[in-house]
Amino acid sequence: MPKQVPPTREGWYALHDFRTIDWDAWRDAPERTREAALADGVEFLQARESVTDAEDGSSAVFSIMGHEADLLILHFRPTVAALDTAERAFERTEFADFTERTDSYTSVTEVGSYTSDEMVKAPEDIEDTGMARYVASKLYPDIPDAEFVCFYPMSKRRLPEANWYDTPYDERAEMMASHGEIGKTYAGKVTQIITGSIGMEEYEWGVDLFSNDPTHIKDILYEMRFDEASSRFAEFGSFSFGRRFPPEDLPAFMAG
Amino acid sequence: MPKQVPPTREGWYALHDFRTIDWDAWRDAPERTREAALADGVEFLQARESVTDAEDGSSAVFSIMGHEADLLILHFRPTVAALDTAERAFERTEFADFTERTDSYTSVTEVGSYTSDEMVKAPEDIEDTGMARYVASKLYPDIPDAEFVCFYPMSKRRLPEANWYDTPYDERAEMMASHGEIGKTYAGKVTQIITGSIGMEEYEWGVDLFSNDPTHIKDILYEMRFDEASSRFAEFGSFSFGRRFPPEDLPAFMAG
Amino acid sequence: MPKQVPPTREGWYALHDFRTIDWDAWRDAPERTREAALADGVEFLQARESVTDAEDGSSAVFSIMGHEADLLILHFRPTVAALDTAERAFERTEFADFTERTDSYTSVTEVGSYTSDEMVKAPEDIEDTGMARYVASKLYPDIPDAEFVCFYPMSKRRLPEANWYDTPYDERAEMMASHGEIGKTYAGKVTQIITGSIGMEEYEWGVDLFSNDPTHIKDILYEMRFDEASSRFAEFGSFSFGRRFPPEDLPAFMAG
Amino acid sequence: MPKQVPPTREGWYALHDFRTIDWDAWRDAPERTREAALADGVEFLQARESVTDAEDGSSAVFSIMGHEADLLILHFRPTVAALDTAERAFERTEFADFTERTDSYTSVTEVGSYTSDEMVKAPEDIEDTGMARYVASKLYPDIPDAEFVCFYPMSKRRLPEANWYDTPYDERAEMMASHGEIGKTYAGKVTQIITGSIGMEEYEWGVDLFSNDPTHIKDILYEMRFDEASSRFAEFGSFSFGRRFPPEDLPAFMAG
Amino acid sequence: MPKQVPPTREGWYALHDFRTIDWDAWRDAPERTREAALADGVEFLQARESVTDAEDGSSAVFSIMGHEADLLILHFRPTVAALDTAERAFERTEFADFTERTDSYTSVTEVGSYTSDEMVKAPEDIEDTGMARYVASKLYPDIPDAEFVCFYPMSKRRLPEANWYDTPYDERAEMMASHGEIGKTYAGKVTQIITGSIGMEEYEWGVDLFSNDPTHIKDILYEMRFDEASSRFAEFGSFSFGRRFPPEDLPAFMAG
Repeated sequence: MPKQVPPTREGWYALHDFRTIDWDAWRDAPERTREAALADGVEFLQARESVTDAEDGSSAVFSIMGHEADLLILHFRPTVAALDTAERAFERTEFADFTERTDSYTSVTEVGSYTSDEMVKAPEDIEDTGMARYVASKLYPDIPDAEFVCFYPMSKRRLPEANWYDTPYDERAEMMASHGEIGKTYAGKVTQIITGSIGMEEYEWGVDLFSNDPTHIKDILYEMRFDEASSRFAEFGSFSFGRRFPPEDLPAFMAG
Repeated sequence: MPKQVPPTREGWYALHDFRTIDWDAWRDAPERTREAALADGVEFLQARESVTDAEDGSSAVFSIMGHEADLLILHFRPTVAALDTAERAFERTEFADFTERTDSYTSVTEVGSYTSDEMVKAPEDIEDTGMARYVASKLYPDIPDAEFVCFYPMSKRRLPEANWYDTPYDERAEMMASHGEIGKTYAGKVTQIITGSIGMEEYEWGVDLFSNDPTHIKDILYEMRFDEASSRFAEFGSFSFGRRFPPEDLPAFMAG
Repeated sequence: MPKQVPPTREGWYALHDFRTIDWDAWRDAPERTREAALADGVEFLQARESVTDAEDGSSAVFSIMGHEADLLILHFRPTVAALDTAERAFERTEFADFTERTDSYTSVTEVGSYTSDEMVKAPEDIEDTGMARYVASKLYPDIPDAEFVCFYPMSKRRLPEANWYDTPYDERAEMMASHGEIGKTYAGKVTQIITGSIGMEEYEWGVDLFSNDPTHIKDILYEMRFDEASSRFAEFGSFSFGRRFPPEDLPAFMAG
Repeated sequence: MPKQVPPTREGWYALHDFRTIDWDAWRDAPERTREAALADGVEFLQARESVTDAEDGSSAVFSIMGHEADLLILHFRPTVAALDTAERAFERTEFADFTERTDSYTSVTEVGSYTSDEMVKAPEDIEDTGMARYVASKLYPDIPDAEFVCFYPMSKRRLPEANWYDTPYDERAEMMASHGEIGKTYAGKVTQIITGSIGMEEYEWGVDLFSNDPTHIKDILYEMRFDEASSRFAEFGSFSFGRRFPPEDLPAFMAG
Repeated sequence: MPKQVPPTREGWYALHDFRTIDWDAWRDAPERTREAALADGVEFLQARESVTDAEDGSSAVFSIMGHEADLLILHFRPTVAALDTAERAFERTEFADFTERTDSYTSVTEVGSYTSDEMVKAPEDIEDTGMARYVASKLYPDIPDAEFVCFYPMSKRRLPEANWYDTPYDERAEMMASHGEIGKTYAGKVTQIITGSIGMEEYEWGVDLFSNDPTHIKDILYEMRFDEASSRFAEFGSFSFGRRFPPEDLPAFMAG
C-alpha cells in the first residue's frame, strides 16, 4: 500500500533564468551597440519588476558568483504561460545578444503541511489571519529586499537504506517539524521561498534563501545538515549564490 | 533461473525531438529570411500533424520551459523508417537553420499486463470492446488535446537491495496493480502514454503525461512517488515540461 | 587468491564510429560541393564494405535514431592498424566536412566459454565442424544482412553486494549458461556479435544485436534483464539504435 | 533531534577563478595586440596582488597543469561585493580576450573547532596571542610564498552507512583531532587554507595546500586518506595543481 | 587511529597530453600551411623525444583510437616546471593550430612497497643491484619500445563495504602481493609504468601498459579484475588505447 501523502497547495509559477555574459562580444561591440543593448536590458528588467506583463507576480535580477552564470533573472507569475513568454521575451531584447542561457529552473510555489490541514487551504479560506498572511506570502511571494540570494534544487532520497518516500507518515511529520524549528530560529535573518518542481525538473524542490549576510545562509544550511531530514534524506543539486541589483544598475554591472 | 517476464505488446514507434532556438541567429536574420523560415516551419509541422508523410500516426509541437529545449516535436508513426525520415526531413526546412537538436527519445508504444493476457492481444482480437478500445488508444495514440505535457524517461532499479528484475512475479504484479489504482483516480485529469525504449535508449520507458492543469501532473507524480513501485524501484531521468501550440502559432512563438 | 578466469579467444578488431551530420553546413553548401561530397562519401563507404583497405574484414553503415548520432560506420578488421587508418581515412573525404565524430567504440571480437575449452581454440583447431563454423562466425563476423542494429556497451558489476568478479566460477558458469539459453530461443530472429573492450574502453564489452524487427531486440533484452546475469550483474552504457542502408543510398539519406 | 553543530567563524571571502588560454587566438593575434593584452593583464594582476581594489585582502596567480585550466587567479577579500567586482573587472582587460572561464569556486575562510570555543572568537577577543595570531592567519590569509598549490573541494559524506552529519559529536571531535595531528607533522612543509562553501557551491569546503615540494602535498594527502575522517567520510571533487608566478612573468608564461 | 601508510618514493613527473585533430581546419588549410605545420610538429616531437628541453626524461607520441583523442604526447621530466613548459611550448608550434586539448593527466612516477623498505630507497642507496636497476627503471622510465599503449587512471575504493583505506595493513599487503604475482606472469609481454596523482588529479594513480599485442593488455587486465585488489577495491577511470609512431611519421599520420 502506498504511504500517506502530505497535502500541498500551489501558488505562483516560478522561473529561475540563469545567463552568462558573452564578454568577448561585449568588449568587441561598438559603444552605440552597447548603449542600445543596456537601454533595452534595463527596460526589460524594469518592466518585469513592475510586472507590466501579467496581472500579478514579482521579478528580480541578481549578479551570480562564479563561472556557471553571471545573471539570475527570477520571475514569479500566476500562469505558466506568463513565464513561458517572459523567457522568450528576453530574447527579443538587444541585450540578449550578449548573453547565453546556461541553466534554468521551472517550479511552482508550494505550501505543504504534515500537521495542519488549515495551512493548505486557499489563504482566503484560512480563519487565522496570521496563518493566512503567512501562507499567502509563501504562495504569492514578494521577492525579499535582501542583498544576497542562495538557490539550490533538492530531492528527498529514495535509497534502499534511506527512503523518505517509504518512511511512515508520523516519522516524516516529526522530521519536518524539527526542520521547521531550526528555520524559525533564523526568522528576521534568512527568508525562504519553497517551490515544488515534480513533473518539471529532475529535482523535486527548489529553495531560495535571502539574507543580508552570507554567513547567515551558511549557518542555517550547516545547522540543518545535522538534522535528520537533511542528514539522512536530502539530495542537493548545485548551489547558486548571488547579489541582487536594481535593473537600473545593469550598466554598472556590465562595466565590471 | 530467470524471473518470469510479463507479456507486452507494441504499437507505433515514437520520437521525441527536442530543439533549442538559436535566438542570436534569429535576431540577426533579415525579415525576409525569417518569414520564409516561419512559412517553411509551419508547413512542416502542419504536414506532420496531418500525417501526410505516412499511412497513420499523430504529431504535435510544444513550447518547452527552461534552457534545455525550446521546442518538442512529438511523432508517433507505424514504422521506425517513418520516424527516421521525420527527423531528417525537419533538417531540410529553412526553419531548421534556427534550431539545434539538444535531446531526443526513441521508443515504441507499449501495453503490458501482469494479470490479463487479453490485454496484450492485438486490439482486433480482444473480445471486450471497451478493453479493445483502451488498448488501441495506448498502442495507436491520438495526442491528447491538453495544454500541458510532461515527459520523462524511467527505469526499474536493479540495486542489490532493490532489484525489480529479481523480485518475484506476484510481488511485481501487486505493485503494478497498486500503481494503476492511483492512475485511475486521475482519470479525466491526466492522460498517460507509455512507450518502451529497451534497446533504443539508456532508460527503459518514456512517459508522457498530458493535462490542462500542471498541478494535476505534480499531484499524480507526487502521490505515485509514495507508492512502492516508484518509491523503491523507480529511477527517473530528467523531466521536460511544456505547453502545446498549434503549428500556425509558430510565428507568435518566435515573436516571444 | 584471485578467482578463476574464464578463457577467451579474440579475432578481428572492431571500430564503431558514430557521427552527426552538420545540417546547417549541408543546407548552406552549394549543389556542386554537396555532389562532390556525396560521391566521395559513397566511394569511401563502398570501398570499406568491399574491404579494399585490408586483407580481410567487414564494414557497414547505419542511420542512427536520435540526436546523439546520425551515422554509425562499423568496421571489423584483422589489425588495430587497419582500424586506426579507417578512422582517419574518413577524414580525408569531402563528405567528412559535413560530419562530427560524437562517439566511438574500440573493441575486439571475443569468444569466451565457461564450460568448453574447445570453443576458445582457433577455429581451424576445433574438431566439431559446426562449432568451428560458429566460432569463426563470432571471431570473423560478416555483418548480418538485417534492417536494424542495436549497440550498447556493458560491464559486469563489482558492487560490494553484487560482485561478478568475486563470484565463484561455478556460479558464473551457471549464470552464463542460463543467459545463453535465452539467446538460443531467438535464433533466426536476432543475431549477436560480442566484442571485448577491456583496456580499450571504460566498459568491458560491446554488444551488437541485428534483427529485421525492432521488437525482437526489445524482447530479447527485456527477457534477459530478468535473468540473474543481467538483473544482478549487468551495468549498461547508452544504447544506439539504427537502420542499415547501402552506401549508394547516402544521397537519399542526406536528402531527408 | 538534530546532531550538535560545531561552531565556526568566517573571515574573508574567496574566489578561485580558473581560466584557459585560447592559444589559437593568441597565435593569430598581431604582435601589437599581444603586447597590449600582456600589459593590461600584468597591470590587472599586479593591482590585485597589491589589493588596490579593496581595503584588505590578498591575491595571487598560478599556472595550472593539464587541460582543464591554464591559469588560477585567487582572491581573498573582506566582502562578496569585492570578489564579484574582481571577477568582472578581469573581463574588462584586453588580456581577457584570450581567456575562457572554465571553473571557479566561491567560498569564505573558516575556522571551526570541535573542542575550543576560544578558537572561533574574533582574533582580537582571543586571549592567547599565539592562538589569536593563528586564527587571524586562517581568517585573513596571506597567500603563502610557495612554488606549488593544490586546490580541491570536498564534502563530508551522508551515506546511509557512513554519515558524518549523523555521527555523534564526540566521535566527530575525535576524528577531527586525529586529522589535525597529521596536519601538524607537516608544519613548515605544507600550509593549508580552509574555506567553507555551504550555500555557495555543491561541495562544502575548498582546501588549498601550498608547498615548495609537490611530494609533500602528495604525502600529506595520502597519509590523511588512511585516517578515518577521510577514509570513511570524505568525498573529494577534482584536484587542481599549479605553480605560482609573479604577475610580471605573464609574458614569459604566454611565451610557452 | 589512522591505518598504517605504505611508504612510497617518487621520481620523474609525468604529463599525458591528449589532443584531437581539427580535421575540418586541416582539410581547408592550404598545402603550404600544412607543410609548415607538419615540419613544426615533427621538430617539436623530435626535440621532446631527444629531451633537448631538460636535463633528463623521456617522451613519445601515440595515435589514439576513438573520438576522444587523436594524439597522446607523453612526457616524463625531472621537474613539474619542465612539464608545465612542455605543455605550453606545444602551443607555440604551427601544428597546434590543428589540435585541441581534450584530456590530460599530471602525475609522478611512484614506487611503493608494502613489504620491502629497501625498495623505496633512492636507487643509488639500494644494495641489491638488480633491485636498484628495477626501481630506477620505474622512477626514471624509458618509454618502452612497443607498438601499443593503454592508459587509465584508477583509485582505491572507499565504499563503506569495501574501503581500501580502512583495511588493515597486512590484508592490503597480501592483496598487493597477489596482484604483483599476476603481473610477473606477463613479464616480457606487458610493461607497466605506475604514476601517483594524489593532489594532482581526481584519481589516485595513472597506469600505462605497453605491449606489442593488444590481447596481452586485455588478458592481464581481465585476469587482474578477478583478483581481490581489483575486484573489490579498484575504481577505474576511462581507458585510452593507442599505437606509438615515430615523430617523423606525423605527416603519414595526418594523411590518414
